[in-house]
Amino acid sequence: MKLLRYGPAGAEKPGLIDASGAIRDLSGHVADITPAELSPEGLKRLAAIDPNSLPKVEGNVRYGAPLTGVGKFLAIGLNFSDHAAESNMPVPTEPIVFMKSTTCIQGPDDEVMLPKDSVKSDWEVELGVVIGKTARYVEESDALSYVAGYVTVNDLSEREYQLERGGTWDKGKGCDTFGPIGPWLVTGDEVGDPQDLDMWLDVNGKRMQTGNTRTMVFGVAALVSYCSRFMTLAPGDVITTGTPPGVGLGQKPVPIYLKAGDTMKVGIAKLGEQNQTVVPFRHLG
Amino acid sequence: MKLLRYGPAGAEKPGLIDASGAIRDLSGHVADITPAELSPEGLKRLAAIDPNSLPKVEGNVRYGAPLTGVGKFLAIGLNFSDHAAESNMPVPTEPIVFMKSTTCIQGPDDEVMLPKDSVKSDWEVELGVVIGKTARYVEESDALSYVAGYVTVNDLSEREYQLERGGTWDKGKGCDTFGPIGPWLVTGDEVGDPQDLDMWLDVNGKRMQTGNTRTMVFGVAALVSYCSRFMTLAPGDVITTGTPPGVGLGQKPVPIYLKAGDTMKVGIAKLGEQNQTVVPFRHLG
Repeated sequence: MKLLRYGPAGAEKPGLIDASGAIRDLSGHVADITPAELSPEGLKRLAAIDPNSLPKVEGNVRYGAPLTGVGKFLAIGLNFSDHAAESNMPVPTEPIVFMKSTTCIQGPDDEVMLPKDSVKSDWEVELGVVIGKTARYVEESDALSYVAGYVTVNDLSEREYQLERGGTWDKGKGCDTFGPIGPWLVTGDEVGDPQDLDMWLDVNGKRMQTGNTRTMVFGVAALVSYCSRFMTLAPGDVITTGTPPGVGLGQKPVPIYLKAGDTMKVGIAKLGEQNQTVVPFRHLG
Repeated sequence: MKLLRYGPAGAEKPGLIDASGAIRDLSGHVADITPAELSPEGLKRLAAIDPNSLPKVEGNVRYGAPLTGVGKFLAIGLNFSDHAAESNMPVPTEPIVFMKSTTCIQGPDDEVMLPKDSVKSDWEVELGVVIGKTARYVEESDALSYVAGYVTVNDLSEREYQLERGGTWDKGKGCDTFGPIGPWLVTGDEVGDPQDLDMWLDVNGKRMQTGNTRTMVFGVAALVSYCSRFMTLAPGDVITTGTPPGVGLGQKPVPIYLKAGDTMKVGIAKLGEQNQTVVPFRHLG
């Protein structure tokens, strides 16, 4: 299943993609795509619905993030060895875990806003893993049964805030608009092997990142198991799993960072593509 | 006002402390102490209620965390210069920001559980700041108007996970039971100056930490302003603001860490005291 949320920001409705690629409205069955809908029982209920029985959504609609109620937005650092190299950092011997603010989550095609006085905003295409079942100290061999599905994430980062302002990375990862998720939440059964997905990211039409989840240092099952040893993973939590090479920080001879007017296309095979325009800072009130 | 939540875990009711120190039940007026209740308007509504008109709660009751719906649990590192010294770390030139998992939040007197195979679990009495109004890029001079109130926090930490497992501190800060909050959420008007509060923590009846919020490197207003530049602070977010010296890691000649059976008493003037017993690891399911 490809689940989604569509409509104006803050007033999204739940939906799914039918076999023809059209959006079907799910709001007659569930109020929203919440953590409860992502449980094994919740997904079974949704899968039992005949998509052809659902109202077809016509016209161009905005996509929201494909789930609401994300409790934690965990992220893994330097999880592709070639990205670690371009960042001049060693390949980690165990996963680097940091957190993105849940307030940075937005729809896949919403504008990305530069933080005030930001000079080092950067892109990162990443595979996001959505938890469907409470996970504590789970074994790697069993870990994928705790996964509801997968999403495309652009793990936007302000490198000065992240790396030059003291302390942990969290400061540079949770700015408003720095967490586009979607367009779809694709369930695990439809994705199959999460370690064989092509990833790409274009800036202004130029391919900057090309990768495949098979070259992750730590795979999805290992990451779910690992994180579940340090904190409870709850339904609706998202773990974004690191980026392949080609970020702005790693460009030669000098880094390239985002500026107002830039466009990004961010995609992962089977999970859909995001299209963002970068806009200058403005006060959101 | 001293707001609180009482009753069995997961089924807490809202309440407040009356002038005689008794708990009064608020559930006839609000369903729970949520972020909406902590807005300036929400607090005004609660303040207009005559406590004597509320049912008195008799007998011994369990306290839950005094608010629900915490979206982010931010934390500030090394914010007392003498604690930085005992940790063998430099006094930061700007605040160190990390995140505790919201799944670690629990009542002030609930048992603290050692993580599996943990050998370096440690205590930290801290002043928690509860946000009442959406804060983005707020000025330090205006920052306290975004604060709903204050809470006692024990920022429990697994030092090996935090400092020896690679990457950021978040791994050692969000284990289950590592976030006791309460007993009360005391509103800003009742607390007055947040930079003049005595802090203490006893382990097994012995005073280990003694401090006062006046020796913070960065005060509450500075921290709210600073954090609001990196992410949106939302009503119900908690910022725990760092600990004075006397943690287990800093003991001489060798560090002392928590073991099953230990007791902690954790208090801040005006905000009330926590009493926890340390228990061994068990699977929570």
